Amino acid sequence: MKRSLCFLLLAASVAMPSAAGHADGEGSPIFGVTIPENYRQWEMIAPSQEDGSFNELRAILGNAISVKAYREGTLPFPDGAILVKLAWKRVPSPEFGGAFVPGHATTVQIMVKDSKRYAFTGGWGFGRFVDGQPVDRAQHETCFGCHQANVKEHDFVFTRLAP
Amino acid sequence: MKRSLCFLLLAASVAMPSAAGHADGEGSPIFGVTIPENYRQWEMIAPSQEDGSFNELRAILGNAISVKAYREGTLPFPDGAILVKLAWKRVPSPEFGGAFVPGHATTVQIMVKDSKRYAFTGGWGFGRFVDGQPVDRAQHETCFGCHQANVKEHDFVFTRLAP
Repeated sequence: MKRSLCFLLLAASVAMPSAAGHADGEGSPIFGVTIPENYRQWEMIAPSQEDGSFNELRAILGNAISVKAYREGTLPFPDGAILVKLAWKRVPSPEFGGAFVPGHATTVQIMVKDSKRYAFTGGWGFGRFVDGQPVDRAQHETCFGCHQANVKEHDFVFTRLAP
Repeated sequence: MKRSLCFLLLAASVAMPSAAGHADGEGSPIFGVTIPENYRQWEMIAPSQEDGSFNELRAILGNAISVKAYREGTLPFPDGAILVKLAWKRVPSPEFGGAFVPGHATTVQIMVKDSKRYAFTGGWGFGRFVDGQPVDRAQHETCFGCHQANVKEHDFVFTRLAP
């Protein structure tokens, strides 16, 4: 019951953010996606890691609408679902050999579901931010193509809920 | 305000769990630490990765008391702080080359702060669980020694809050 109330409160504070996340600062090119308020407190969907030149640790957080869809296996995700991927450089722990921990933050990347507004990109709007500012239009032009090519069958979303 | 209310609710539901986490199932040897209710909804402190034979992705979540301490830089952590580390095998993403994602869950590891009850182990009780069951006494005998040897100056806690 406490949990449900929290969910309602969270839902009330983040749902239907005029379809593009709460407006704090500049929106992303093409999509107008902004960084949602309080996203850092959202539930963790999963961590991940990227090799190569990225060399990052990542964590994907989701708002209450997206978490509910994950837990219930709802696809496509409903309108109002928002996912936020935080990324940090992957650095060796100075305190434990063989462990790697987050270094400096690199990007915050956001997907907002609005099936009408973003009908031409699978219902998703994309935002990629560095230091709180959206990156350029050219980078945003590449988002959907990659999601479409690789995870069309999972409503264009790479991340699965970690058990 | 909504946030604060959520925090209060969470705090009410998880704080002071008779010093050893909510009792769901068997407690850990030595410490009697149990798996806290609803910990999967707690705020993420940081992801991490472990190389070698572990080959795991991990995520450390914290209850409201621990998150407040992290954000305010409070050391030592106050009584009632609980940290939960979830670990999964690290597997290559089948959908994106160079990315790694959580495979099957391996362990859930818990630290509970109670400076009186756990006075002889830096104020922390430890629990290591596989499939919801605590591992044996011998494994629990090793917890504090490693934390003491490596992170005594950070109140015996490895994890830092990821920005």
